Amino acid sequence: MIKQVLIGIVCGAVILTSGILIGHFGINKSSSSGPTWVRDVAKDVDESLIEIFLSEVDNIQIQKNLRELTKVPHMATTAGDEQTVQFMLKRWQDPETGLDEAWREEYMVYLSFPDPKNPNKVTVVSPSDAVLYTAREKEKTYTPDQDDPDVVQPYAAYSPKGHPKGKLVYANQGTPSDYQLLNETTDLRGTIAITRYGGAGRAAKAINAAPYGVIGVLVYTDPLDINDGLMSDVNETYPHSWYMPPSGVERGSFSSRYGDMLTPYLAAKEETYRIPVEDITGIPPIPIQPIGFEDAYKLICELGGKAAPAAWQGAFKCTYNFGGPGFKLTSAFNNSDVKLDIFNHEEVKNSSNVMGVIRGSVEPDRYVIYGNHRDSWVHGAIDPSSGTSVMLELSRVLGKMVKQGKWRPRRSIIFGSWGAEEFGLIGSAEYTEQYFTKLSERTVAYINVDIAVFANATLRASGMPSVQNVIFTAAKQVNAPGLDSTSVYDNWVRYSNRTSPVHGTIPRVGYLSGAGSDYAAFVHYLGITSMDITYTYDRSKTNARIYPAYHTAYDTFDYASKFIDPGFVSHQAIARTAGNVLIRLADSLVLPLNCSDYAESLEDYLNTAVTLYQQQLKKMNISMEPLKRAVASFRSAAAHLDQVIRTSDLANETPLKVRRINDQLMLLDRAFLDPLAFPDKYAYRHVIWASSSAGKATFPGLADAYANAESSGQSSDWDKVHYHLSVLSQAIEGAAHTLVDVI
Amino acid sequence: MIKQVLIGIVCGAVILTSGILIGHFGINKSSSSGPTWVRDVAKDVDESLIEIFLSEVDNIQIQKNLRELTKVPHMATTAGDEQTVQFMLKRWQDPETGLDEAWREEYMVYLSFPDPKNPNKVTVVSPSDAVLYTAREKEKTYTPDQDDPDVVQPYAAYSPKGHPKGKLVYANQGTPSDYQLLNETTDLRGTIAITRYGGAGRAAKAINAAPYGVIGVLVYTDPLDINDGLMSDVNETYPHSWYMPPSGVERGSFSSRYGDMLTPYLAAKEETYRIPVEDITGIPPIPIQPIGFEDAYKLICELGGKAAPAAWQGAFKCTYNFGGPGFKLTSAFNNSDVKLDIFNHEEVKNSSNVMGVIRGSVEPDRYVIYGNHRDSWVHGAIDPSSGTSVMLELSRVLGKMVKQGKWRPRRSIIFGSWGAEEFGLIGSAEYTEQYFTKLSERTVAYINVDIAVFANATLRASGMPSVQNVIFTAAKQVNAPGLDSTSVYDNWVRYSNRTSPVHGTIPRVGYLSGAGSDYAAFVHYLGITSMDITYTYDRSKTNARIYPAYHTAYDTFDYASKFIDPGFVSHQAIARTAGNVLIRLADSLVLPLNCSDYAESLEDYLNTAVTLYQQQLKKMNISMEPLKRAVASFRSAAAHLDQVIRTSDLANETPLKVRRINDQLMLLDRAFLDPLAFPDKYAYRHVIWASSSAGKATFPGLADAYANAESSGQSSDWDKVHYHLSVLSQAIEGAAHTLVDVI
Repeated sequence: MIKQVLIGIVCGAVILTSGILIGHFGINKSSSSGPTWVRDVAKDVDESLIEIFLSEVDNIQIQKNLRELTKVPHMATTAGDEQTVQFMLKRWQDPETGLDEAWREEYMVYLSFPDPKNPNKVTVVSPSDAVLYTAREKEKTYTPDQDDPDVVQPYAAYSPKGHPKGKLVYANQGTPSDYQLLNETTDLRGTIAITRYGGAGRAAKAINAAPYGVIGVLVYTDPLDINDGLMSDVNETYPHSWYMPPSGVERGSFSSRYGDMLTPYLAAKEETYRIPVEDITGIPPIPIQPIGFEDAYKLICELGGKAAPAAWQGAFKCTYNFGGPGFKLTSAFNNSDVKLDIFNHEEVKNSSNVMGVIRGSVEPDRYVIYGNHRDSWVHGAIDPSSGTSVMLELSRVLGKMVKQGKWRPRRSIIFGSWGAEEFGLIGSAEYTEQYFTKLSERTVAYINVDIAVFANATLRASGMPSVQNVIFTAAKQVNAPGLDSTSVYDNWVRYSNRTSPVHGTIPRVGYLSGAGSDYAAFVHYLGITSMDITYTYDRSKTNARIYPAYHTAYDTFDYASKFIDPGFVSHQAIARTAGNVLIRLADSLVLPLNCSDYAESLEDYLNTAVTLYQQQLKKMNISMEPLKRAVASFRSAAAHLDQVIRTSDLANETPLKVRRINDQLMLLDRAFLDPLAFPDKYAYRHVIWASSSAGKATFPGLADAYANAESSGQSSDWDKVHYHLSVLSQAIEGAAHTLVDVI
Repeated sequence: MIKQVLIGIVCGAVILTSGILIGHFGINKSSSSGPTWVRDVAKDVDESLIEIFLSEVDNIQIQKNLRELTKVPHMATTAGDEQTVQFMLKRWQDPETGLDEAWREEYMVYLSFPDPKNPNKVTVVSPSDAVLYTAREKEKTYTPDQDDPDVVQPYAAYSPKGHPKGKLVYANQGTPSDYQLLNETTDLRGTIAITRYGGAGRAAKAINAAPYGVIGVLVYTDPLDINDGLMSDVNETYPHSWYMPPSGVERGSFSSRYGDMLTPYLAAKEETYRIPVEDITGIPPIPIQPIGFEDAYKLICELGGKAAPAAWQGAFKCTYNFGGPGFKLTSAFNNSDVKLDIFNHEEVKNSSNVMGVIRGSVEPDRYVIYGNHRDSWVHGAIDPSSGTSVMLELSRVLGKMVKQGKWRPRRSIIFGSWGAEEFGLIGSAEYTEQYFTKLSERTVAYINVDIAVFANATLRASGMPSVQNVIFTAAKQVNAPGLDSTSVYDNWVRYSNRTSPVHGTIPRVGYLSGAGSDYAAFVHYLGITSMDITYTYDRSKTNARIYPAYHTAYDTFDYASKFIDPGFVSHQAIARTAGNVLIRLADSLVLPLNCSDYAESLEDYLNTAVTLYQQQLKKMNISMEPLKRAVASFRSAAAHLDQVIRTSDLANETPLKVRRINDQLMLLDRAFLDPLAFPDKYAYRHVIWASSSAGKATFPGLADAYANAESSGQSSDWDKVHYHLSVLSQAIEGAAHTLVDVI
């Protein structure tokens, strides 16, 4: 009995122990890996989800989007624009495929329009005031699109009204040196200058002219610059090809600043202070009007004077004469003037951004912003609706995954459909002014896809150097349109590449130093890591400055689907590439921003600066050593941070560690901001990527200050070089400080 | 047998089940609460640790620190200053009680000194050039301290050198209206003005004078303003009391700007660009020299003219005459001039900050900064060594806990011992310039304790409204010095209080709208939530402008220990209070910064602005509605964030949630920065707390713009009011945007 009891006790003990062991080790406690958020915070981007995304992006949907968006002209603040607002809202509020939330934000912005009742006129007027020739007021009709009553007359937005009349002179591209050269032999006072697009900004063609006494300016697109020389609409230009018809006219904003002009640095709300209109700078001081090359041909070939320099010659089958002023003796226009009658008026109008968000699951306070403008000049099939169609398709695919509960990004995604970009990036700029602090503090990156497809040859991407890598990763996962077994990346590297000391031969990613699209306020004002992505030309096949229907009445669905991207496969490739980048930025545990690639670009800039400037600066007793030390600090700090990332097990460490590293990466570009670095440039604060007129591949403020000092020779201008060197060195050192161990 | 087997099986099953249950629920798996960091990230401030801290803060240690720091004069960049650098480093690098790391940071800064070989002179000179009277060059000796050869002669730093000679006039406090009034009856050209401290900034007394043709300025401290009228060193002034002896002279920086003057916005490194000396603004354009009231008495009582207005009269036993110019007929000085011989020179010298850190355990990338300057004018026992002694004591107690492994703060703590504050807050300003981005991104708060103890009556605290609450919490846990059962808080509320609509009667916390100490760059340039903490007077017992030995050779250990804080108990109370605040900021799970208290201050400012300005602004067609809406948005966003904090279980939710909320709180003040809001004020960017000359308890830029427009009546000045209203409204709206749900 005792034995039995003992056996029983032993057995019981064994069983109990087994039970305890099973209970302890064999069964997972629901809380065995801690709170549920422990898993969520460690989650990285899901490659299978990216595959699903890529497969769901549909070219036919993009085509449908484009057809809808291009039904009517949708110039900013017109009824057509409002239709697109409603369309975006409907799509982003769709219960099946929409975003978490979508809304509009309105700004009262300063715009400029022609008068539909008094169209602008360009005429040749005889000494007796007889009108000998009248330039075409509207572009010729080839499809019903051009007949739409809402097609705005070609005009130069922000050109003052006026009726200048004078002898015509050909002034090439209207650059400062063009006018200077012309002025050497011709008295320009009281003349009308005719210029071709290119070489100088739109407004600059008039701003540069005025000091010489020029009283009016015409601008046209030379077939040499846009049509590879072709001119005939019988068989050469649209609708026979993508080339610009003879009556086509590039419209545009003739303002050299971005953002609403009356409310600098302030969001243009109803009661916001507005500067006096007479204080506006950077717009034409004299009337200017764009015309088609059909009319320019008539005028230029009749001009007197001697032959202009070879570089001034265009594609017209005549010699472009130089000087005059006025028409040649043998011309029917001899002794006649050219007269501009400009009836433009300015107006403060209500422009809308349409905004939509997908709320982040783990870090809702981190934003990846994806945007494009919505407004066009006419139907804007390519500019901007190709980009909008792409944005709508990728937001549809993402929205659907969210609505189906299959996905929610780690970080928040904000979509912006900006208004009034064509007048000067107004919608995006006002948005950054209104939400300056919030966006500065929380935005991981801005992705801009404006014109999604210029042409169907290759990807083109520009951005801060830190985004290069994520674009490469994305582009490797997307098939190049029309090339079954080649990736967008492999195709790209063939068209445009460079040799990196670290990466070898890689596609060339451009920089965003200008203000060509809505990335400007994000890059230059906010210092947010940004990129611009598009599909573009084979440069060996065309010299066109841009796709030829740009800003004309021919930029239509018909044009886009026949000549730019039949089948919409390049659109699809862009949606896939940009969407892939977007998902990676939103979902990656460690932000896919590479600070060592930034160091490589700074070293490039430094090397160029040393080569160009060091010798002379030494003579002026200005040392480049602080700049060299700053770039070296940046390189070593970047290498260190990279190593920390590489050697950390971030998925298993405290989520505050990965957050800390991500904050370092996210905020890197903010370190390069100095609101006082460019006192003469509106809203340019990024000391590495600001615009520059010096045309050197180096630090913009240094290049400009150096060029200025070199040309003036003034010691106060050399002081400015020294000053800017200090500003620059301090900014780069400051950026390096943010990359080293946080303490 | 079957039964036995069955019983055995049932028993076995029961035992096994029990075992499983015990094993599963009864024994904690080591990983049952997930990774170890799960506990760390949720940890809140430990009240028992605060108790230990409070009990360890030792008044005798503070006394020892002060004795060590005040052995010799330690004016910026002198050998005495270097001794204090070494002392700080030794203490902060102490293996038992030091910090994790400590180091020095050097800047080459623009300073101004008298010439020891050619002391500045103030004389009365007869028409025949006989010297009738010479003002004292050094302060009288009462203790060996005044005999130290390194006691710098009293002088006005940044006064130009020069030898002006002219008739003396009394100009009260040297404010613009003082000179204006004087000028109504007296031709001031070629005169020397004698002014008393107070009413206007030091430099202003000369800057305001120059336009009237005044060629030199004297400044002294009237016994009325510092000594409650007492004047005799036989029994009334130090060493008999805390009052200033007749020969005492307040030295000081006569610059109205802060930071190194030659390197605006740039850290003053060796090769940094320096502006030309002639471009410096805000310093005296004419020589100025401070003298003791003993000499001022001699000069003022001999002045001619009629009696000056009552408000101009001081404590001298004579009538302060007005006009003249020069001495009265009955004076031995009749017809004589006063001559200044100023030999000051400027020099770029190496000034050091001493920095020390305790690395944060959970969020090392969040900084709580605690600082004070190290440099004095002479021995500087109170200014600044009282603060430095306190800083060293609290860093000793904290450092010891760290070295013993008992504690490591959640966030990093940075200690700063700033150089060259007396010359214009230079060390702290250069630090903020050098590390601008890093500090902007990561600093939770800045605590400034400069003069720790002015007097031993009550706490005085100033800061952003959001810090009020944490100061209250800390002050409630510290005993008031000399009052056994009263807290610092309860004592404080008796001396200075206000009624808050939310909190009822509470101590009055001041604002940091000036640049009186090293908080300036943190508040105005970086927009970092800051506070300044000190122990101060019973205002019912003295009218002294400041403690009477301020900036004199009498500010010594002897003075401090006998007359300011015998027993060093007020120093101890400050160390406890400020240290408690520091620990709470460093350790609290949710940052103890209250945004609703900020809203209350904005509402106060708004109410005042509406009362003062609305009627007139309406007439000028300027609406205050956007400002009202902005303040209302801020209030509701703050209430919402408070509710989120109250209703969240932040210790058990993802640490990224509390981080997000803390980021909202930390960055709140950054939202009020606008680098373009005050184009005429150097490094003032905070639109709520910038300095103002209008003297109204409301938004500074609005008050100044309004005062300016009201006085000029120009419509362009009313435009500036409207413009600033827009800037202000946008900043407050922007701040509100950062407090609402992040998306």
